Amino acid sequence: MQEEHISSVFDRDLEGVQAQIMKMGGLVEEAIRVGAKSLEARDEELACKVRERDKSIDDLEHLINERAARILALRAPTAIDLRLILSVIKISSNLERIGDYAKNMAKRTSVLSRMAPVGDSGASIRRMARLVEAMLKDALDAYIRHDAALAADVIARDEDVDQIYNALFRELLTFMMEDPRNITACMHLHFIAKNTERMGDHVTAIAEQVAYLVTGSLPDEPRPKADMTSSVTGI
Amino acid sequence: MQEEHISSVFDRDLEGVQAQIMKMGGLVEEAIRVGAKSLEARDEELACKVRERDKSIDDLEHLINERAARILALRAPTAIDLRLILSVIKISSNLERIGDYAKNMAKRTSVLSRMAPVGDSGASIRRMARLVEAMLKDALDAYIRHDAALAADVIARDEDVDQIYNALFRELLTFMMEDPRNITACMHLHFIAKNTERMGDHVTAIAEQVAYLVTGSLPDEPRPKADMTSSVTGI
Repeated sequence: MQEEHISSVFDRDLEGVQAQIMKMGGLVEEAIRVGAKSLEARDEELACKVRERDKSIDDLEHLINERAARILALRAPTAIDLRLILSVIKISSNLERIGDYAKNMAKRTSVLSRMAPVGDSGASIRRMARLVEAMLKDALDAYIRHDAALAADVIARDEDVDQIYNALFRELLTFMMEDPRNITACMHLHFIAKNTERMGDHVTAIAEQVAYLVTGSLPDEPRPKADMTSSVTGI
Repeated sequence: MQEEHISSVFDRDLEGVQAQIMKMGGLVEEAIRVGAKSLEARDEELACKVRERDKSIDDLEHLINERAARILALRAPTAIDLRLILSVIKISSNLERIGDYAKNMAKRTSVLSRMAPVGDSGASIRRMARLVEAMLKDALDAYIRHDAALAADVIARDEDVDQIYNALFRELLTFMMEDPRNITACMHLHFIAKNTERMGDHVTAIAEQVAYLVTGSLPDEPRPKADMTSSVTGI
């Protein structure tokens, strides 16, 4: 009976900290969506909202870390329970980074909306952001359901994000060469595109935690890395 | 006696995992140094070495994480000991990211060395890299010695890295506007510069872990964020 009692308290602790991860995930999904929308619509007010709300994401990360440390100290979990707590720490740190990139996107929106638009790059970035947002939603679902197959699917989809990014990189180079007045705006857009691509990498890292949780080790194979721009020698 | 016995085994575990952090730190310092040198000297062979050695850094991160999880499961540490293990997990993840940025720098070196040089950007980046390398060395020293004052000093020095980066960002914009043939090389150089600036952020995160270790909580004040390029509207 004593053991059951301890274990049910532990389960409640775990549920609590996982509920906070889901809450944090929801805020981050919203930051990606609203950040990309503000960029495409050149809506400074919307961009401001994303910047303001980033504080709650950071606060949640601190709270989750404290709670995880308290559970480790009080309950001394082992096996799957220990892996759950460790994954909570890793995932909250990935979510915080994604939130930071969304905030940075919003910051640059305010500057970009005062410059001449460059092609339809805003729409391409929003398309990338939508993919990342959907991947994040599925990664968190996979996490809660311990669904390794869905996690593997998320990891595979990161290649689509990389492909849009690679195309956008070349497109931005062309815009800059055609008209040097585009250069400053293109540098900002490139920043945003690269950060969105990095969001995808962090979502992939979250999906990898699901594999860790279920199997006890991270995926053997390094995930496909499809940022090909490091070898672009010219247009 | 039993308690003493357990505690000395625990101490040995801790020393072992901390020695691995220092080994990993040494490899990452080398990757930064050699990566930046290969970029400035346009030395493809040297760049290849950095890329090859990144595997050992990644392997060490896995090893450290596994060892930390085992210590948590077997020893159920609390208070400062628990914080030590948690900081080991965070620090190894920061080191892995820095190593990844150094590898990326080396990758782009191979491409850049086939293009016409752009000003003395290679030297500026190497200067940034030297600062980051020295900061990393001090952050790891602060970690081993539990020296919160040295850690605070490291955090303050990140502003110098940000300043070199901001100057370089503007310089690269100018080079691109002066001659569109510079654009592709400048985009690669900008990537490298931004990644080096990010290395500084990760070193700062390591220094923050020292504060966590010593005081039990992260520094209250958000660290100074001095990447001002998000508001650059033109040259």
